[in-house]
Amino acid sequence: MNEKTAAPRRDQSSVLHSTFSVERSYPVPPARVFFAFANEATKRRWFAEGEGWEVFEYTLDFRVGGSEISRFRFKDGPEVRNDTIFQDIVPNRRIVFVYRMAVASKPLSASLATVELVPSGSGTLMTYTEQAAFLDGADSAQGREEGCRELMEKLAAELQSSI
Amino acid sequence: MNEKTAAPRRDQSSVLHSTFSVERSYPVPPARVFFAFANEATKRRWFAEGEGWEVFEYTLDFRVGGSEISRFRFKDGPEVRNDTIFQDIVPNRRIVFVYRMAVASKPLSASLATVELVPSGSGTLMTYTEQAAFLDGADSAQGREEGCRELMEKLAAELQSSI
Repeated sequence: MNEKTAAPRRDQSSVLHSTFSVERSYPVPPARVFFAFANEATKRRWFAEGEGWEVFEYTLDFRVGGSEISRFRFKDGPEVRNDTIFQDIVPNRRIVFVYRMAVASKPLSASLATVELVPSGSGTLMTYTEQAAFLDGADSAQGREEGCRELMEKLAAELQSSI
Repeated sequence: MNEKTAAPRRDQSSVLHSTFSVERSYPVPPARVFFAFANEATKRRWFAEGEGWEVFEYTLDFRVGGSEISRFRFKDGPEVRNDTIFQDIVPNRRIVFVYRMAVASKPLSASLATVELVPSGSGTLMTYTEQAAFLDGADSAQGREEGCRELMEKLAAELQSSI
């Protein structure tokens, strides 16, 4: 027997485990933020669309066990695929999902993500926590966190435009 | 704008994010350990069956995107359900999966788990890393880690018996 508990680290088969958490306030109540995750047309606008991005496929089946599939590319870049499956949904309060990303069919990462929405005055405090496994050194935790912050800004713009 | 990066913690909506990693050596090569995860009859024996456990359902579709479903109870306890979906598979080397646990239909946790197999002499060093989100205080990270160590011992017994 040879057992020990070890801190997460990059190991022999090149999986890097990383967790980060980001908070963002929005000036609308939790139900409005939740809707932006739950409604396919709205989610597509802030999550998949954008200048320079070409969306090949976007579908959302927002229920526990349901899938969200997006395939897209940025300018002339390779096709990126995101396969999401919802793990837990508490309306207006919490969304837990797993997503796998692949670039040009090569697996990049698998992540467990938690979105928590808490009323804050007349607005919402959103906490996004991602527990990620980056495969074969294909991505970095820092780049992922930056990407998530950009998405949170896109969500802010979506919420602003629909007030 | 109100952004900050925070360490994972129990927050207002009661999600506890936790990561643990456990190593275990087995006296058989990686292909034998991998087979014990990939073969339905073998996996069922060490993962689902056991004295005091009643298995209501066990199915394994071992491929990326495939599901493993188990429903069971311990003695007169409530029904426990485990829904697993495979995120990444590298034969004889790596298995990444997400699993959701529920007790009596109440969601307990969602976890991203990574199994890494590395040759070590004539045997295998397995590293199991779990990145878990425990929902509404329903479980504890410590109990989960202990449960995983027990499963690793059951796997050791399975590998021993089939040598």
